[in-house]
Parts: sequence; C-alpha cells; structure tokens
Amino acid sequence: MKKIGYQGVRGCYSEQASKIFFRESIEFKQYKTFRDVFEGLKNEEIDFAVLPIRNSITGGIREVMDLLFEEEAYVIGEVTLKIEHVLIGFPESSLNEIEYVYSHPEALSQCKNFLEKMNFKIIPSFDTAGSVMEVKSSGKRNSAAIASKYAAELYGMKVLRENIQDSENNYTQFFILRRDLFISDGSDKTSLIFITEHKPGALYKALEAFAKRNINMLHLESRPIKDQPWNYSFYVDIEGNLRDRKISEALKDLRENTLFIKVIGSYKSKW
Amino acid sequence: MKKIGYQGVRGCYSEQASKIFFRESIEFKQYKTFRDVFEGLKNEEIDFAVLPIRNSITGGIREVMDLLFEEEAYVIGEVTLKIEHVLIGFPESSLNEIEYVYSHPEALSQCKNFLEKMNFKIIPSFDTAGSVMEVKSSGKRNSAAIASKYAAELYGMKVLRENIQDSENNYTQFFILRRDLFISDGSDKTSLIFITEHKPGALYKALEAFAKRNINMLHLESRPIKDQPWNYSFYVDIEGNLRDRKISEALKDLRENTLFIKVIGSYKSKW
Repeated sequence: MKKIGYQGVRGCYSEQASKIFFRESIEFKQYKTFRDVFEGLKNEEIDFAVLPIRNSITGGIREVMDLLFEEEAYVIGEVTLKIEHVLIGFPESSLNEIEYVYSHPEALSQCKNFLEKMNFKIIPSFDTAGSVMEVKSSGKRNSAAIASKYAAELYGMKVLRENIQDSENNYTQFFILRRDLFISDGSDKTSLIFITEHKPGALYKALEAFAKRNINMLHLESRPIKDQPWNYSFYVDIEGNLRDRKISEALKDLRENTLFIKVIGSYKSKW
Repeated sequence: MKKIGYQGVRGCYSEQASKIFFRESIEFKQYKTFRDVFEGLKNEEIDFAVLPIRNSITGGIREVMDLLFEEEAYVIGEVTLKIEHVLIGFPESSLNEIEYVYSHPEALSQCKNFLEKMNFKIIPSFDTAGSVMEVKSSGKRNSAAIASKYAAELYGMKVLRENIQDSENNYTQFFILRRDLFISDGSDKTSLIFITEHKPGALYKALEAFAKRNINMLHLESRPIKDQPWNYSFYVDIEGNLRDRKISEALKDLRENTLFIKVIGSYKSKW
C-alpha cells in the first residue's frame, strides 16, 4: 500500500486532496511541519508527499515554495480542491450556544464576514482540522471550530453552519511529490524555479525563452532568496511537457540567460 | 501635529518605522486591521498611514498589497527596519522560570531555533507588541512575549534574551502613504501595479517597456486577482521618477500592452 505524507492532523485539506489523487487505497502519515514532510520523503518513510502549493485568494504557500527550492523532490501531479469552511461543534450543540471559535488564522480571516456578524470570541490555533480535535477534547459545548465538512465527519462532530467563508472562489492547489523526476504520459505542464542576474532587463531576457516559442506561461511568482535580502527567485509554470522539443530548447535558452535553474516537475494539469 | 495611523498597538514595528521617517513630533492612531488604516486615511482621521509592504524573509505583506490595489492611497516614502525580536518578561522574571511564550505566528516561526531549544509552550497571538500587553496584564511571571526591544521599553518590561531570531537578515520595508499622489524632489523609485492579458508572451511584452529603455526593475511580485481564481496582477518597483521622460514614456508603452495599470507612487528609496 502506498504511503502518503502530509502536514497536519487527520481530516486536514491535504488528506482530502490525497484521496482525490490516489484512487487506490493508501496509508497516511502525519507530520508536524512542511519541512518534516520533505524529510520523511527523503528518508523513505513515505512514497509520496501531498502539500498545498497555492491558494486562489492568498497566493503561493511560501514555506512549501521555499522547501521546493532547497530540497530534492519532484512534482508528479496536482490536485485542485475547493475550500469550503464550515462551523463545527458537538452533535448536541446548537449555533446559538457557541461563544468560542477556534481555527487557523488563515481560515479565520477567510470567514471574517460571518465571524463579525456572530460576535464570537476568536481563538487562533495552528490547524483547521486540529482545532476540531481541540474542541472535541475540551468537551466544551460552547466552543466550535472552523474546518472542512470532511473533518467534521471524521471526528464525529456536527456541522453547525455550512458555507461560512467570504468568497465562493476559494481553491487550494496541492502538489503530489516524489523523490525522483518522473514524467507520466500526457504531462502538459512544467514547473521550474530560476534566478536572474540583478541588472536591467534580466527577467525580460529570461522570459524571452518562452515568449519567442509561443509557450504559455501559466504562473509566475517571486520568492526572497534566503539570506540575500531583496534578491528573488522566480517560480514559473509553463504549458508543455519537459520531453517536448520546444520546451527543452526553451530551457536551454533560459539556462544561458539566468544564474540558476531548477526543474521541479512535468505533470498532468488535469486530474 | 501630523497624525500617523498604523495597524497594531503601541510599540509595534510600524510605530518604530514612523519614528524613523517623521523626525518631527507626531501623533499616533492605532487601528485593528490594515483595511481600517486605509479607511482612516480616506476619512481624514489621519494624515499619513505607515504600513509594512514586504519582509526580506517572508516576502510581500499580501493584505497590504491587495489594499493598495483596491483603495486610493499613494506612497510618498519607504523605511527599512531591521527586525530584532527579543524575549520579554516581567522585570522580576528570569529566563529559567519562563514556561509560556506568546507572539504572532510569524514572529514565532522566525525564532524557531531558539524556541525549539528552550522547549516553551507556545501560544499564538494576533500581535507582537500586543503579546507584550497580554503578558503584562496577565501578571503571570512564567509567561513571556516575543516582540521588539522598543516594545519592552514602552511597556516597562524586561528583555530576558536578545537576538533570538534565526536569521540576521530580517528586514521589513514600510510604505508611508497619503491620500494624494505627491512626488517629492529627488524621488528615484516608482511603484505600480499592472494586469496583462492571459496569453502567451503577455508579461514579456509588458516588461519590454522597461527593458528597451534600460530601466532597472527592482522588484516584481504577483498577487491573485480577487474573485478571478488563477488570474494575477503584478506589483513592480522600477528605478526612476514618474516625472522623468524615460519613465513616463515607458508607462505609456506599458499602458498599451496591458489591461490595467495603476501608479501607486514615486518617492525616495533612501531615508
């Protein structure tokens, strides 16, 4: 049975994403931090890692982006999950007795309108699904957590209110990672990181590699380089397979016009 | 006396940044959220807003970037502050009696090495300086907060340990904002936001406006566009003054090759 590692506790969004990607039966291993997941992959404790890479509202998951730069791991697929936060309490609780609401600050801020209307006391926690565990083990009927319906079911808790997030357009993309580069048939998307020189026109010159071949750039995001204040690397997704001649030629060009380049995978964009 | 608004409580890093920029005597007004500060500026409750725009380790302050896109406010200057977190307790406390440490999750994660070594119980809070207030009002001698030396002094608390952050290269840049566009003499940096069409080569074509005039692009960062999943705007800093002919011509070009462009200021980069 394949072993899948993720950051978080049982019932988290990464676990949900894993279940969408791997249709066969799989085994889960939970890690405390994103870095621990990468370590687990390197040490062969797990076969695959499933990690959030970006959210449609907040943007890239920075710690994961930085780890993809530092560590050796390759993307073999991606999953897009619609994030639907619900308010979760005890089966015997009702909405009007709730006084305290626990969740991760990100989830709390995504439910701002609902929370302001309800006038709960808000308590930040490290995790969405973890906050369900916290509420459950506290035994306090006046407390609730914000997480997914999936987490509510898994912990035998009740959904007190569905659809509490401000925006309907809340999606998170997850990367499925393994230790080695593996390009499956039908891969149509390639992800890479590069660093340009710090001079006028450097990024423009780098992007020429794609532009002159009419290669569609699906995404570009910058990240600070560690211990080099105000220097940045660029994370880019392009349309196409690393094995396509057009793509390999573009990467050859890119290599000549940048200081550093790292391909992190070529995979199917639809799943 | 000039009125300066910022997000946070007395003693926060934004207050420190304000004191560096405004050398004359100023009055402070605290707001709960970044959005509230923009509202306060619009409603003329304050003359200037001071807001963090990027950190050298974590990157752009996303909520502020998004508000610069949505709201009407202009950058008239920037201040770079070295972030030096210290552990703060009661004057009569000593490091070895501390059991609980409070701070904002970001500050906590920036002091990870120290915290792991010390084995404290970590409690996330909404604010760095706010966590000093929290500890002070709790009266608990076994509790400490992570914030700046400046906050420790302001609240009459003691620095239990200096220099606890993992990286020496921790800087935050703050924007000084006012209601109207105002370009002071000697401005050498211009900030703007643009949106390109969603087609191959669109970003490349946009950047040509700067590249062909040898205009140095100091920074480029993308942000998701609200309610348009996987569509992005680009935040760009370029070298030069909006009044320079080279810059105004570049912006004319840029306007022709993009769907949207918004200049958010032209100001001095050194202060």
